[in-house]
Amino acid sequence: MALTEFELIRAYFAHVGADRGDVLLGVGDDCALLRVPEGRELAVTIDTLVEGVHFLPGVNPESLGHKALAVNLSDLAAMGAEPAWVTLALTLPETDSEWLRAFSRGFSSLAERHNVRLVGGDITCGPLAISVQAQGFVGPGRSLRRDGAHVGDRIYVTGTLGDAGLALLAQQGRYDPKGYEEALAARLHTPTPRIEAGRLLTGIAHSAVDISDGLVADLGHICEMSGVGAKIYIEEIPLSPAVQAYREEGGGWDVVLYAGDDYELCFTLPPRKEALLERLREQFKCPVTAIGDIVADSGVHCLEPDGNELSRIPSGYRHF
Amino acid sequence: MALTEFELIRAYFAHVGADRGDVLLGVGDDCALLRVPEGRELAVTIDTLVEGVHFLPGVNPESLGHKALAVNLSDLAAMGAEPAWVTLALTLPETDSEWLRAFSRGFSSLAERHNVRLVGGDITCGPLAISVQAQGFVGPGRSLRRDGAHVGDRIYVTGTLGDAGLALLAQQGRYDPKGYEEALAARLHTPTPRIEAGRLLTGIAHSAVDISDGLVADLGHICEMSGVGAKIYIEEIPLSPAVQAYREEGGGWDVVLYAGDDYELCFTLPPRKEALLERLREQFKCPVTAIGDIVADSGVHCLEPDGNELSRIPSGYRHF
Repeated sequence: MALTEFELIRAYFAHVGADRGDVLLGVGDDCALLRVPEGRELAVTIDTLVEGVHFLPGVNPESLGHKALAVNLSDLAAMGAEPAWVTLALTLPETDSEWLRAFSRGFSSLAERHNVRLVGGDITCGPLAISVQAQGFVGPGRSLRRDGAHVGDRIYVTGTLGDAGLALLAQQGRYDPKGYEEALAARLHTPTPRIEAGRLLTGIAHSAVDISDGLVADLGHICEMSGVGAKIYIEEIPLSPAVQAYREEGGGWDVVLYAGDDYELCFTLPPRKEALLERLREQFKCPVTAIGDIVADSGVHCLEPDGNELSRIPSGYRHF
Repeated sequence: MALTEFELIRAYFAHVGADRGDVLLGVGDDCALLRVPEGRELAVTIDTLVEGVHFLPGVNPESLGHKALAVNLSDLAAMGAEPAWVTLALTLPETDSEWLRAFSRGFSSLAERHNVRLVGGDITCGPLAISVQAQGFVGPGRSLRRDGAHVGDRIYVTGTLGDAGLALLAQQGRYDPKGYEEALAARLHTPTPRIEAGRLLTGIAHSAVDISDGLVADLGHICEMSGVGAKIYIEEIPLSPAVQAYREEGGGWDVVLYAGDDYELCFTLPPRKEALLERLREQFKCPVTAIGDIVADSGVHCLEPDGNELSRIPSGYRHF
C-alpha cells in the first residue's frame, strides 16, 4: 500500500538536519514553532527547482537534495546571515522510497554541516519540483544588501566562475571536458553555499549578491539597486583549471560571465577595507578575488586587458 | 519580449499585502529581513497546490491566489498564531500578465484582510504549482498543538462541514446542487481561514487542527499524537443548507466526514472551559459547535443517534 503524505513525512523528513534548541516544535503539527534570538533580524528566502528546467530528469536524488538546500543557503550567505531553519515543499510524481531516502540523505547532510534543521515539510503528488524556504539570523543593520554599493568600491568574487556553465555544456554533449568531468559535475550538482564568507563580510562589504543567474546579471542587480555601474576586468576573474583549459582551447567568455548556477558570492567593499579583507583571508574557506570597480556610469562593462569592452549584451539566465 | 523573473516579481509581487513595520526589507534582495516581536514564538508552515491535483486546469486565478494563501493561513489559525509574513514560490508554464494580475489580486486581497505581507517571491517556468510559506507569532506556550487532547475533552468544530466535498461532487457532475452552486463553489475555491477563532482559542483549547484532509483524518492526527481516541456524534455536526439538502435527498456522510478542503478548525477543550467559550462566542466570527468527546479507546468512532458506529474505515484524502 502506498504511504500517505503523513507517513512519508514522518519516515523521511521528521528528523532531517541538526538538532537545535530553538526548535520548540518541529515537523508533524500544523506549524513548526521557533524561537528567534533576541535582538537579531530574521532573513528569509524561497527558491524552487523544477525538473526539466533547473535539472534533467533522472538526476541523482542525493545531489538534488543537496542542491535544493544549497541554492537557498546561498541566498542566506549573500545576506551575511547564519542559517537556522528550512521548510521543504516536495512535489513528486510517485512515492519511490529509494528516491526519497537518497534525496533526504543529500538534504540532511548539507543541513547538518551548517547546523540547519528541517522544521516543516509538505509532500504532494505532481510533476517533480522542490521549493525550499530558508531562514537565518543576522545582527541589526549588518546584513549585506544589494543596494549598498558606492562609486569607488572594489568588486570581488568568491571561488571560481564558469564551472557550472561549462558542466552544463559538457552535459549537453557540446564540450568534452577531458579529465575534468567529475570536478565540473560536482560544481553544477552539489554547489557550496558560501556561508562562512558571507558571515565574515558583514560589517566589511557594502553590498553582496549570490551568482545564480550569471555574474553580469547578478552584479547588474547590485548596480541597478545601488544606482551605480561596474567595470569588470575579465582577465582578473578567477578560473578553475577546467575553465582555463576551455579558454585555452578557444572557448569564449560566456560560461564565465553569463552562465548561472555557480553560487559564488559577488560583493563590493570600499578600498579602505581591503587590508581587513586580507587579514581575514584565511578564514574564508574559499578564494576571494578582486575583479573590478564600481563606477558612476550605469551598466556592467566587461573590459579586456587592452581596455576594449566585450560587445555582448548581458542577458543572464532567463527563466521564461 | 517576455519579462524576466526579476521584472515579473517587481511587477506583480513587490507590493502585495499589508504594510508592516516589522518588514525591514521586502521582495527584491537575496532575502527578506524581518523583526520578530520580543518574547513571541514564530509559527511557520508550508503548503503546495498543484494543478490537476489540488485544482483543475483553468480555475479562476483570482480564486487560486486566495486559496493558495488561505490554506497556509489556516495552518497558522490551527496553531492559534497571528499571521505576519508569507513567501511565495510560483511555477508557471508561461508568463501571462492577465493571469498573474488576477492571481496577485486574489492573494493580496486576503493578505491585506489579515495584515499579512508578501516578503519573498520566486517565479519559475514549469507545470503550474504554488508553494506558500506563512509565518506568524504566538505567545510562549500558548500555541494550539495536536498532542494536547485529554480524555474527557469536548470536541468542537468551527463553521459547517462537507461543503467543499459537495462542491467537488457538483464540479465533477456527480451531484446537482440546485440553487446552492455559488455558495458551495465559494467554500471550495475561496475558503475562509479561521484566524480569529484560532487566536481566541489559545489558552482555552487543549488541541487543534485544521480540517484539510477530512474531519476523521485530521481529528485522527490529534488522537494519534495525544494518545487518545474520539467519539463523534454525527447528527451534531453542523451542516450548511446545501449539505442538509444533500443529506435529505439520501446523500451519505462521506462528504461531511472524509472529504477535505473545508479548512475549518477542529479543537478539543476541557468541559470546565465551555462556559468561557460561550462568553466568547460572539467574537468567533463563525459558528462553533460541539460534536463529540475525547475518549481513552484509540481511533475515531463516528456514532449514529442510536449509538451504532458507522462502518466505513476512515481514509482521509490520500495524496498518492
